[in-house]
Amino acid sequence: MVSLYLEEIEKLSKDILLRHGFSEAQAQAVTDTVVAGQRDECHSHGLYRLLGCIATLKAGKVVADAEPEIADQAPSIVKVDAHGGFSQLAFQAGLPILIKKAYSSGIAALAINRCVHFSALWVEIEQLTDAGLVAFACNPSHAWVAPAGGSQPVFGTNPIAFGWPRIGKKPFIFDFATSAIARGEIELCRRAGESIPLGWGVDANGQPSTDPAAVLAGAMLTFGGHKGSALAGMVELIAGPLIGDLTSAESLAWDDGSHSFPYHGELIIALDPKRFLGDAADQHLARAETLFESIQSQGARLPSQRRYEARERSLKKGVDIPEDLYEELNRLLE
Amino acid sequence: MVSLYLEEIEKLSKDILLRHGFSEAQAQAVTDTVVAGQRDECHSHGLYRLLGCIATLKAGKVVADAEPEIADQAPSIVKVDAHGGFSQLAFQAGLPILIKKAYSSGIAALAINRCVHFSALWVEIEQLTDAGLVAFACNPSHAWVAPAGGSQPVFGTNPIAFGWPRIGKKPFIFDFATSAIARGEIELCRRAGESIPLGWGVDANGQPSTDPAAVLAGAMLTFGGHKGSALAGMVELIAGPLIGDLTSAESLAWDDGSHSFPYHGELIIALDPKRFLGDAADQHLARAETLFESIQSQGARLPSQRRYEARERSLKKGVDIPEDLYEELNRLLE
Repeated sequence: MVSLYLEEIEKLSKDILLRHGFSEAQAQAVTDTVVAGQRDECHSHGLYRLLGCIATLKAGKVVADAEPEIADQAPSIVKVDAHGGFSQLAFQAGLPILIKKAYSSGIAALAINRCVHFSALWVEIEQLTDAGLVAFACNPSHAWVAPAGGSQPVFGTNPIAFGWPRIGKKPFIFDFATSAIARGEIELCRRAGESIPLGWGVDANGQPSTDPAAVLAGAMLTFGGHKGSALAGMVELIAGPLIGDLTSAESLAWDDGSHSFPYHGELIIALDPKRFLGDAADQHLARAETLFESIQSQGARLPSQRRYEARERSLKKGVDIPEDLYEELNRLLE
Repeated sequence: MVSLYLEEIEKLSKDILLRHGFSEAQAQAVTDTVVAGQRDECHSHGLYRLLGCIATLKAGKVVADAEPEIADQAPSIVKVDAHGGFSQLAFQAGLPILIKKAYSSGIAALAINRCVHFSALWVEIEQLTDAGLVAFACNPSHAWVAPAGGSQPVFGTNPIAFGWPRIGKKPFIFDFATSAIARGEIELCRRAGESIPLGWGVDANGQPSTDPAAVLAGAMLTFGGHKGSALAGMVELIAGPLIGDLTSAESLAWDDGSHSFPYHGELIIALDPKRFLGDAADQHLARAETLFESIQSQGARLPSQRRYEARERSLKKGVDIPEDLYEELNRLLE
């Protein structure tokens, strides 16, 4: 393993992105989420993702110098056209307007269109909870996941994320794929020659399978049976047609076998407790703390606890990344 | 079984509620959802629920003549105080304002406070999809469900419902409990002396159990492990403290062993595709149809299909209800 401080990770990420022609603004926005992912020990959303960024660029599937374009769509809707760039810069462009609209209307939505997407949603959610807002976000991906009762891929891994601001404490945030497992986990099992648990997916004939290669060639399944499948469908609809953007099937068709990151939209909704509750906001946020205590006092964890513990470690001591990844990243600087 | 036309069910429901002192407006609003539930063969949300309505009234846990009070809380938020009555009349009071706000802002929220709640959320969602809106609703209940990794009840069965309007077709709607199973199903197994599958709940010592009585005395579990548990937590927060209303634990404490329907709030969010998409709305709603076709063409069902099939049957031929239920209901008229 190689030990790196967060400043070193930031420099490495930005150098790689600039070296390959990304604009300063795109490189900084992508780097911010790569550093956040590595810092919180979400390794699959850390430096590792830069390999995919460069591969997606080489495949001609991302615009390196895209400039997001903001549209004030409605009193409670802001839209940002990413113009084929990564989602992060588009999110940054829309964020101040989303916050302003949530403060004034009570609830507001940000729709990001035509973005290339690979970032964890919690990074964005946390910027809304930092503004005192309750937040929800979701997006489609590539069609890899079959609906409950079916065997053909229709849905993406379709993550859902939610955040709740806490006074004087780190926010309550969850962020999970509506697929039974991340596609990357199945890839890892395939490379390691390991079998996967029943329930993660079916083979090309629609039969339940423990063979990772067979499932990757067949279809993944959603978590939670027909309920998870219904949620995956909701994500397709509200972060696809509702915002005028691609479904996971359309994103995969656009990819055309290039194995690039998905290209689609993203929906973020923000709600302002102060507009819902007025002067009583603090009193009711305190009752939420009672709920959290009743979860933690019985030994159960809050969703982001592991990430926050990792963050504290990383801020002090930096992070370790595998030597082969470090070498591969450095080759991208040549 | 006794065969009844929907008009007979409506009359029976309304007669029972009026006979026990509910106001005309409360009786009609409750009856509308009871008829809808029975019509769609959601038997547990049909006439059967009237037994609970009367029991809740006798326990002093619902206000029979409550008049909902509307507050125009923010440009995109309307609040309705049910003043201790059933949720249905409060929903009806807030519905036109929610629709108007969604049309003008693009996204809007209806918070119902201090309501007694037993209705299926799809009945409400369908009134929003009828107005061309995308809709989401959720509410807590009584604390019967343990968080993932825990063994003590914190969450209610916390249903989530979602609806998507379809041009010329019945809407895409799902409505499910975030608990692994409805509490009523465990009750039925207990009465029938049957065991329940592992995964539905734990006993009072936190051990997985197949004994329905032990689980009813212990804790139910959420669907989908830690992901379902995270969603149940989200429902507690956004339909509890965010709207200034009770959590499931607080609702159960208020119940004080009377076995009445839960008393809490409800959050409904509506989004207007026309405000998100302008003139392109129809074009993008058509792409949603492609998604539905790709689900149905592989033999998988859309969430509400069974209900719509039942509805067609019921509208033509009426419905069958068990004779002992029919007799019990008629005794409530004496």
